[in-house]
Amino acid sequence: MSAASADESASAPDALTTLRDALRQFALERDWDQFHNPKSLACALSVEAAELLEPFQWLSEPESAALPPQTLEHVRQEVADVFLYLIRLADKLGIDLVTAAKAKIEVNSRRYPVAQARGTRRKYTEL
Amino acid sequence: MSAASADESASAPDALTTLRDALRQFALERDWDQFHNPKSLACALSVEAAELLEPFQWLSEPESAALPPQTLEHVRQEVADVFLYLIRLADKLGIDLVTAAKAKIEVNSRRYPVAQARGTRRKYTEL
Amino acid sequence: MSAASADESASAPDALTTLRDALRQFALERDWDQFHNPKSLACALSVEAAELLEPFQWLSEPESAALPPQTLEHVRQEVADVFLYLIRLADKLGIDLVTAAKAKIEVNSRRYPVAQARGTRRKYTEL
Amino acid sequence: MSAASADESASAPDALTTLRDALRQFALERDWDQFHNPKSLACALSVEAAELLEPFQWLSEPESAALPPQTLEHVRQEVADVFLYLIRLADKLGIDLVTAAKAKIEVNSRRYPVAQARGTRRKYTEL
Repeated sequence: MSAASADESASAPDALTTLRDALRQFALERDWDQFHNPKSLACALSVEAAELLEPFQWLSEPESAALPPQTLEHVRQEVADVFLYLIRLADKLGIDLVTAAKAKIEVNSRRYPVAQARGTRRKYTEL
Repeated sequence: MSAASADESASAPDALTTLRDALRQFALERDWDQFHNPKSLACALSVEAAELLEPFQWLSEPESAALPPQTLEHVRQEVADVFLYLIRLADKLGIDLVTAAKAKIEVNSRRYPVAQARGTRRKYTEL
Repeated sequence: MSAASADESASAPDALTTLRDALRQFALERDWDQFHNPKSLACALSVEAAELLEPFQWLSEPESAALPPQTLEHVRQEVADVFLYLIRLADKLGIDLVTAAKAKIEVNSRRYPVAQARGTRRKYTEL
Repeated sequence: MSAASADESASAPDALTTLRDALRQFALERDWDQFHNPKSLACALSVEAAELLEPFQWLSEPESAALPPQTLEHVRQEVADVFLYLIRLADKLGIDLVTAAKAKIEVNSRRYPVAQARGTRRKYTEL
């Protein structure tokens, strides 16, 4: 992160921190921390990911790229649910999402070199 | 993107926008946009969510909150994978993650009023 | 098991009973019943279902119907894993799979009457 | 299979064959074969596995072994859904469930020798 963005976050928390804090407050007010252990949150995340998959299951790939507005609005809520549980789980595990994501992109860059990975769906173990 | 948000990101793009753009570039260089339709990305997200669940499956809840360092490092990578596919899917669907998340917290606040939801695991349909 | 079903299985146990008993024996020999509570088995089942989905995630629908032999062999093993955990979970919950399946087909017949459901992918709540 | 069970299946089809045929008929009557490609069925199976996980997500392991009757009835229907999609997917892929399951138990026996696997949750790659 640049000095500029560090400055910025000193004065105004970034969006992910704001969401993390909102979820902490949400759980605190409802006394839900007793249920929010990592295993249960990982279950909830898988359940939400499947709810996000559900509206796509019988569509063809091209159809999935042209959802009717009502389906898209439903999908938007499921996307949000996955995001919220992911933020909550990462918080409980002490994982910084952005740092972890940047590190994973680095790993993926090494696993999928452009020359070998171009235009193929093969897994890195088969490149 | 509106002119306003373009201006804003001109001075210091936020972390999510930076990750979204890195994933766009990653796919472009590898000619992977042909595979990244929403249905396939939703499949990939579910698969990654399950890979994140896998290290927890045989643990008790208290054990899941005290992972050994090697397991935590593995979990960190799986958390990152879920995050990256979520950013990519949201991008392809034109969904702003932070806006959707804030809207969903609002919905959840109404579904789970503190007075009724306090200390219970019941679903909102049963409160 | 009732005396009647014990009699029946005395002459020739059906395939599902044989598999259920093999899994019981497998767990017993390894002292794994301590880990095989329904929540953990339901986690394992979701994980295996996602491993079964994984080889299909980047394929088109027509491609998914014409797997190369090596992929099909891998898929066969994942299908088996889902089946084995399903048998094990049902056993732990006291659920007879065949009876439950027949009852669900009845429910589905009522939810999806031929006249309304013909040729459509709509969910029964939208018919 | 013994000669006795072969005889039996000649005169009376076994339960899995009966269910497979009922699902074929169900799809035929509704003109659903056009939607039942392996990728979409694998999606549906993952979605149903997650719906089966959902009632367990906030429970402790001991609680998951003592479900109230209403929850158990709900779980029974979700177990059935997973089973039905598994039978359907296997049918579309030309996989015999029982043969595949027996072969996988053999593989697991080699991966998890009693002496090393006893009382541990470690994966076979770590034994």
